[in-house]
Amino acid sequence: MTGITTHGAKRLVLVSGRAHPELARHVSSELGADLLPLTAYDFANGEIYVRFNESVRGSDVFVLQSHTSPINGWLMEQLLMVDAAKRASAKRISVVSPFYPYARQDKKHRGREPISARLVADLYKTAGADRLMSVDLHAAQTQGFFDGPVDHLWAMPILTDYVRTRVDATNVTMVSPDAGRIRVAEQWADKLGGTPLAFIHKTRDVTRPNHAVANRVVGDVEGRTAVLVDDLIDTAGTITEAVKVVLAAGAADVIVAATHGVLSDPAAKRLSECGAREIVVTDTLPITQSFPQLTVLPIAPLLARAIREVFEDGSVTSLFDGNA
Amino acid sequence: MTGITTHGAKRLVLVSGRAHPELARHVSSELGADLLPLTAYDFANGEIYVRFNESVRGSDVFVLQSHTSPINGWLMEQLLMVDAAKRASAKRISVVSPFYPYARQDKKHRGREPISARLVADLYKTAGADRLMSVDLHAAQTQGFFDGPVDHLWAMPILTDYVRTRVDATNVTMVSPDAGRIRVAEQWADKLGGTPLAFIHKTRDVTRPNHAVANRVVGDVEGRTAVLVDDLIDTAGTITEAVKVVLAAGAADVIVAATHGVLSDPAAKRLSECGAREIVVTDTLPITQSFPQLTVLPIAPLLARAIREVFEDGSVTSLFDGNA
Amino acid sequence: MTGITTHGAKRLVLVSGRAHPELARHVSSELGADLLPLTAYDFANGEIYVRFNESVRGSDVFVLQSHTSPINGWLMEQLLMVDAAKRASAKRISVVSPFYPYARQDKKHRGREPISARLVADLYKTAGADRLMSVDLHAAQTQGFFDGPVDHLWAMPILTDYVRTRVDATNVTMVSPDAGRIRVAEQWADKLGGTPLAFIHKTRDVTRPNHAVANRVVGDVEGRTAVLVDDLIDTAGTITEAVKVVLAAGAADVIVAATHGVLSDPAAKRLSECGAREIVVTDTLPITQSFPQLTVLPIAPLLARAIREVFEDGSVTSLFDGNA
Amino acid sequence: MTGITTHGAKRLVLVSGRAHPELARHVSSELGADLLPLTAYDFANGEIYVRFNESVRGSDVFVLQSHTSPINGWLMEQLLMVDAAKRASAKRISVVSPFYPYARQDKKHRGREPISARLVADLYKTAGADRLMSVDLHAAQTQGFFDGPVDHLWAMPILTDYVRTRVDATNVTMVSPDAGRIRVAEQWADKLGGTPLAFIHKTRDVTRPNHAVANRVVGDVEGRTAVLVDDLIDTAGTITEAVKVVLAAGAADVIVAATHGVLSDPAAKRLSECGAREIVVTDTLPITQSFPQLTVLPIAPLLARAIREVFEDGSVTSLFDGNA
Amino acid sequence: MTGITTHGAKRLVLVSGRAHPELARHVSSELGADLLPLTAYDFANGEIYVRFNESVRGSDVFVLQSHTSPINGWLMEQLLMVDAAKRASAKRISVVSPFYPYARQDKKHRGREPISARLVADLYKTAGADRLMSVDLHAAQTQGFFDGPVDHLWAMPILTDYVRTRVDATNVTMVSPDAGRIRVAEQWADKLGGTPLAFIHKTRDVTRPNHAVANRVVGDVEGRTAVLVDDLIDTAGTITEAVKVVLAAGAADVIVAATHGVLSDPAAKRLSECGAREIVVTDTLPITQSFPQLTVLPIAPLLARAIREVFEDGSVTSLFDGNA
Amino acid sequence: MTGITTHGAKRLVLVSGRAHPELARHVSSELGADLLPLTAYDFANGEIYVRFNESVRGSDVFVLQSHTSPINGWLMEQLLMVDAAKRASAKRISVVSPFYPYARQDKKHRGREPISARLVADLYKTAGADRLMSVDLHAAQTQGFFDGPVDHLWAMPILTDYVRTRVDATNVTMVSPDAGRIRVAEQWADKLGGTPLAFIHKTRDVTRPNHAVANRVVGDVEGRTAVLVDDLIDTAGTITEAVKVVLAAGAADVIVAATHGVLSDPAAKRLSECGAREIVVTDTLPITQSFPQLTVLPIAPLLARAIREVFEDGSVTSLFDGNA
Repeated sequence: MTGITTHGAKRLVLVSGRAHPELARHVSSELGADLLPLTAYDFANGEIYVRFNESVRGSDVFVLQSHTSPINGWLMEQLLMVDAAKRASAKRISVVSPFYPYARQDKKHRGREPISARLVADLYKTAGADRLMSVDLHAAQTQGFFDGPVDHLWAMPILTDYVRTRVDATNVTMVSPDAGRIRVAEQWADKLGGTPLAFIHKTRDVTRPNHAVANRVVGDVEGRTAVLVDDLIDTAGTITEAVKVVLAAGAADVIVAATHGVLSDPAAKRLSECGAREIVVTDTLPITQSFPQLTVLPIAPLLARAIREVFEDGSVTSLFDGNA
Repeated sequence: MTGITTHGAKRLVLVSGRAHPELARHVSSELGADLLPLTAYDFANGEIYVRFNESVRGSDVFVLQSHTSPINGWLMEQLLMVDAAKRASAKRISVVSPFYPYARQDKKHRGREPISARLVADLYKTAGADRLMSVDLHAAQTQGFFDGPVDHLWAMPILTDYVRTRVDATNVTMVSPDAGRIRVAEQWADKLGGTPLAFIHKTRDVTRPNHAVANRVVGDVEGRTAVLVDDLIDTAGTITEAVKVVLAAGAADVIVAATHGVLSDPAAKRLSECGAREIVVTDTLPITQSFPQLTVLPIAPLLARAIREVFEDGSVTSLFDGNA
Repeated sequence: MTGITTHGAKRLVLVSGRAHPELARHVSSELGADLLPLTAYDFANGEIYVRFNESVRGSDVFVLQSHTSPINGWLMEQLLMVDAAKRASAKRISVVSPFYPYARQDKKHRGREPISARLVADLYKTAGADRLMSVDLHAAQTQGFFDGPVDHLWAMPILTDYVRTRVDATNVTMVSPDAGRIRVAEQWADKLGGTPLAFIHKTRDVTRPNHAVANRVVGDVEGRTAVLVDDLIDTAGTITEAVKVVLAAGAADVIVAATHGVLSDPAAKRLSECGAREIVVTDTLPITQSFPQLTVLPIAPLLARAIREVFEDGSVTSLFDGNA
Repeated sequence: MTGITTHGAKRLVLVSGRAHPELARHVSSELGADLLPLTAYDFANGEIYVRFNESVRGSDVFVLQSHTSPINGWLMEQLLMVDAAKRASAKRISVVSPFYPYARQDKKHRGREPISARLVADLYKTAGADRLMSVDLHAAQTQGFFDGPVDHLWAMPILTDYVRTRVDATNVTMVSPDAGRIRVAEQWADKLGGTPLAFIHKTRDVTRPNHAVANRVVGDVEGRTAVLVDDLIDTAGTITEAVKVVLAAGAADVIVAATHGVLSDPAAKRLSECGAREIVVTDTLPITQSFPQLTVLPIAPLLARAIREVFEDGSVTSLFDGNA
Repeated sequence: MTGITTHGAKRLVLVSGRAHPELARHVSSELGADLLPLTAYDFANGEIYVRFNESVRGSDVFVLQSHTSPINGWLMEQLLMVDAAKRASAKRISVVSPFYPYARQDKKHRGREPISARLVADLYKTAGADRLMSVDLHAAQTQGFFDGPVDHLWAMPILTDYVRTRVDATNVTMVSPDAGRIRVAEQWADKLGGTPLAFIHKTRDVTRPNHAVANRVVGDVEGRTAVLVDDLIDTAGTITEAVKVVLAAGAADVIVAATHGVLSDPAAKRLSECGAREIVVTDTLPITQSFPQLTVLPIAPLLARAIREVFEDGSVTSLFDGNA
Repeated sequence: MTGITTHGAKRLVLVSGRAHPELARHVSSELGADLLPLTAYDFANGEIYVRFNESVRGSDVFVLQSHTSPINGWLMEQLLMVDAAKRASAKRISVVSPFYPYARQDKKHRGREPISARLVADLYKTAGADRLMSVDLHAAQTQGFFDGPVDHLWAMPILTDYVRTRVDATNVTMVSPDAGRIRVAEQWADKLGGTPLAFIHKTRDVTRPNHAVANRVVGDVEGRTAVLVDDLIDTAGTITEAVKVVLAAGAADVIVAATHGVLSDPAAKRLSECGAREIVVTDTLPITQSFPQLTVLPIAPLLARAIREVFEDGSVTSLFDGNA
């Protein structure tokens, strides 16, 4: 037979944008693989330049970026890295976006809106991404926006394992700040061994039409530790309102937990003053705020394990999509 | 200038598969346009044959199908009609699927599942559909599965207008059969003028692990008319269980309302025996069951209005996507 | 160089839908590889659920399905399996459809028909299939409908090897039931060492316009064993009519052979009563009918060999596309 | 409402490559529309340059080319014209290829061949063609190679209308030069009012393996006018062999008819000397040969009618795909 | 014939992002069409929200954005507007980007870089853009990056018409600041009636390797008015260096002209101090800097004319691509 | 775990079209891999037939073609080979086109032209090419026309290494025949250690409008060896004109160097008579002309090295894209 025959190797490459260098270093260290050296800077007019300083030819490339502010810039930087990897003959390209950008715009709430989360999936695909990895998507349906494999990681065990050490589980009530997010609270309740469940019921003040007010706790929180959970905390308006309602309803103690600490202004102020004992988030996004009640748990071990399993073709359903 | 110049006309064509001929005739009549004559039959081995008996060249074609049993056969028939329209030089093809097939499989609940609702969107696109029209999608995110315009119609006003005539709105409590569906009940509550809201809280019997039991009404139903709402009723297990719980909790009366009456066995038996005063659905699917408590409201007027607006480039946001 | 480097393995996975479990088991056994465990069932409204019970990450997945009745259901099940494999990070996905669904609708016979066989190829592609394997396509051009590699297997040697043991080859005449299918008979004649050839000539009764009647054997069958061949037998009307004509023309004996035994009603009755000594088909489709003259030859060895060659990058042109 | 609203016109544009200027002029004249002026020439190294000398913005553009030698050059010229039309904002682009290039390579006869006819369809699509028009495709399945509408015109009526004037229809036998092409002869036989049918049966000389010889007429030609039909005549080897066999079998007279007169060397010599009274073809390709028996019928009226119907969204199934 | 037939209208819609409201208003006014009202704002974490406040169904939508800082945000806003227009059933979507973002990254200067300008073209396409309009692309080849029509407008006549009024054309020398950009200067020279031409020749100081220095004027500038031209001025380093060299070479006077005034810091300082009499740019980008020598010419009339021609299917080659 | 697991090998396959057999043999020999045996011929009407005589299943296939006259035929042959490789289950397909066809038509010079170089990239992609390799593209932007990795090889070192042996580098002036190509001359000047640079300045004769004449050398050539460089020499009009101008300006000696020797008539005559001492080209195209001054350098070593690096996933940026 003509031609040349050899045995092939496979190589994992981890490269990160500039948005969250601590996370990149941490994932690299957990993975036991140095980050691929990258040149990246902004031109005077804000256009971004990227270049890989080492070959990625034939490699299984993971392009990590954290979508913090300026979120559009970091998204563009990630797209440029994907394009560069594609044109440099990478074998497979996985986008790793722990916090999925534009995740909350996952449907048309009204006519003539974009479906931004779908657009983002298409932009990744167009740039050359074969696969997508993310953590705790705002809606699980977003997996279906990407035309290819999505590794939907689940940070809940990291949060529950920690919270378990901070509470007497027999005296906890899980609380959802919003009726629409109660499934997350249900999963926590199961995970903590079957705690009671409660929600904040937003009713409308009939004298002030179209004005929603969070004002009633449905379920039993009196004298108990209320654990309030959500997927993300942005400006913290809803969640801190919920903390106050829960405390007013007689809760002995409140802990707030969320995967993504967006923490846009004035989140830090609100959270530090709302009366909660502790606020627990992961570092899928860089946490630049600091206040006494804040606890930040590392997401890098989960990302590193998932990247390694993907690279090695492991069976990782127990790791991903854990909410079977 | 060379060539031939004329003024163009635009033509709307409505064609329907064989799944639900009453609905097709009703839409045609509301629209004031005859159905395009279609030849459609099954070959001996179950393969489907379709052919349009009239030209669709240059037309704005709406391909209506209702996804009842055998659902895969009707889906394939619709795909074949779309392919035929594409190859026959239709100008634009809109799929009209009042009940979106596989809508409930809109995410991976566990690893190694398909995302069937996304697959269906892609099959429509591949066959040649430019646009999609559907009613009350199970999850609004499904709009984002289709790469093109989706007219997401909203049947709630049809149901609420009817239910309002059947109850004393001041004595109603809106009830969601499941915590995950409570937003629909909230919208009803608003629409009915701000009624109280309740849900069925599924708690787990700690002596029987992993066994969910619907056993608690959260909210006030005693002495009131409970209106239980959902997007669809399939075998009616969850909803009839909910009816019983609500009645046990002292509700004076129960009405059940849903857009899509799938009514698979043993839904008719369960619904007729559950104690609800009335079960209200629309005819997005053919209703072959019959029992005294069942009321079927016509969906054809809504579909016909939407089709006409789409054809005439009207501004129809108030009609579609009404849940702003 | 940064990153992690390892040596890769390649893994073949065989998974089958529910249409023809005997064939799946047989292919698995011939291949020496267990079937991947699959969960598959119908929901109450006929929607199909599938899930792989084991990882397919990085694997070379062959998705086998047999397209018997209900053919649209089995096609959809196969598409769902392909989608699941794609989203579960399979490395390569080959659809194995021994009997290609909708193969006979491979062109527009009249205006405004679909080209269903092309649509099926596109649906496979859209779901995520990289490759396609089939046996004895109705028209070889169907290979060109799929945008990728097609392994077009050739079952004739299986049939001819068997038939050779059942006849005196020096006294055989190969007969085509239809002028349009005579090339298959020609290939048989060559394979059997140069037998005479005949066809059934359909002439029209001038007193009954547009009514085709099979009524004349062209070629010499008197006193000989007539072997009638076609790619498939559906309701068996044409072929049993041909048997009668051949016998009326003095054939001593008739054997009927075809690759695909669709055998829709009333094929069994017609075939058992037509006067042929033996009817030979393969089990590309499940044969649920049974009658004395019927012989079913196994297709699994051919499929298993082809799958192994594809997996191992063998040179398999002699196996496939044999009709050079 | 904001914006500017006007009423639109639609404009047909006909533009032709350089392969067959007579055909282009004839179609233009039948259509009543001047050809769009085109600049087209070859650079010194054989690269082709094209440019439209007039705007095609918003127009319905028909890009005509005849695929004679050098066929690859004319194909490329047509692709360049399509690209130019797409980039010049044509509204819709129809490729008009009366003789479909590479039509005979419509399947893999052996492993590791291309499927050239599918490739051509994909090249047209990629360049920007929305639609395709062709005459008497070698295999009707080729329609399915193009992902969009195909107007498959049918030249048979042009040929039969002429031949009818040249023969005594009651004394005609339709003859196929090859068993595989007999369906065309069947359609002629019907069209001429139910003539007898015959074929040339290629049998093999057992003393010379693998050597096919056309040596037997199946059917009755003695004393009759044999009309031999095929879709195309290239070097005329098969057809002139058939003429001799038919004459040897006692035919009184032979007429040969085919849609596409490729007439590569030594077709003219063979045809003029084979003994046929008349050879009838259309001018889908430029006929540069000339000999007494040759009759060339114009295809332009058919093309012009079809183009006009497509432009005007007429119902043209009776015109196209006539072999219902 | 079944269906409904009406006569259609066509509607032009102009909508603009938030980057350069003055330009949007000016184009709107030149066009005689109000801007479509748009809701657009940033969420707390920087994600952008857009919504059209009026229907665009069936319209010919032009989505204008100016790519100034923060350039990635404005690009994303434009992509979201395109996605919204697509999902809202716009008939055709043209992206209008007077200054094409990332235009300078139009090739890989070194291995493992992205080709950012191609990526941008693909992002527009993916979001739903059918067409693209831009002014004076950095490289004309960028037209080929977009898979569809590109209206490449040419601002030179605006600039030359103005400059002609400011100089004695018989005493002008056109100067290119860089050998690579000399073709633009050649076109100016022709346009001004055949002026002499000169360039700045960058030679290397052999004592300081790899350090390019602009130090020689090639051509005659002594005692003449030097007009220095480029497509864009970013930080103005190259161009102001060129001004000094030209003055040092004895030029009597210097005018600088460019289409795109990016004017990133410290451009204003450099330009105001470099010794040039006048700096002329258009307002394709918002000019926030101000200094005595700066003249800003309006680009809106050109954009408005082009938009109208595109909408009306005019023949606009003289307007676009003028550098024939 | 179910399935079959083995270790995979990887195989390089080199296959060449018929355009330039010497180059194919030379690359094969440099690579140490026989050419894959290919059957390729023209049918009577000019359609091309190709078939691989050996399996390419699972292989890394490089499809080499040289785009000389008849260029459209050789391009089509290469597309057919790519299609055949795709359908024969090649794992990866790289098109190797040392001289990129239609490279000069890389933009619309005027409205209503195609962008032929982009079309060619799309044709390659459509046929199934995953990657593209070429040498010294006319414009580097053409890399961005292909949606995938492009290995842009750089032949300059081959030419400069040779020329260095033919001149006294301290007495050389690099000359560009055209202002637009001066960057190539700049790179040569650097490579040769910093030689002076000159260009031919085309000025217009004001008495003969629109008639460009090359008539002035800008820079110092008197008494020096002028090395004139370009990417290609087609009919040699521009370059031989430049030679004469340079000699007229007092150059002691002239050498002409270019990567691609298209050498269409009357290039040989012009070059041999223009007065240059030596004309140096590579054999990316077959050089059928011969005259005393012509030196042809082999390109095969560069191609073979690049192919091997691509196959082995080497880091080859120093080899490719060397003009960092």
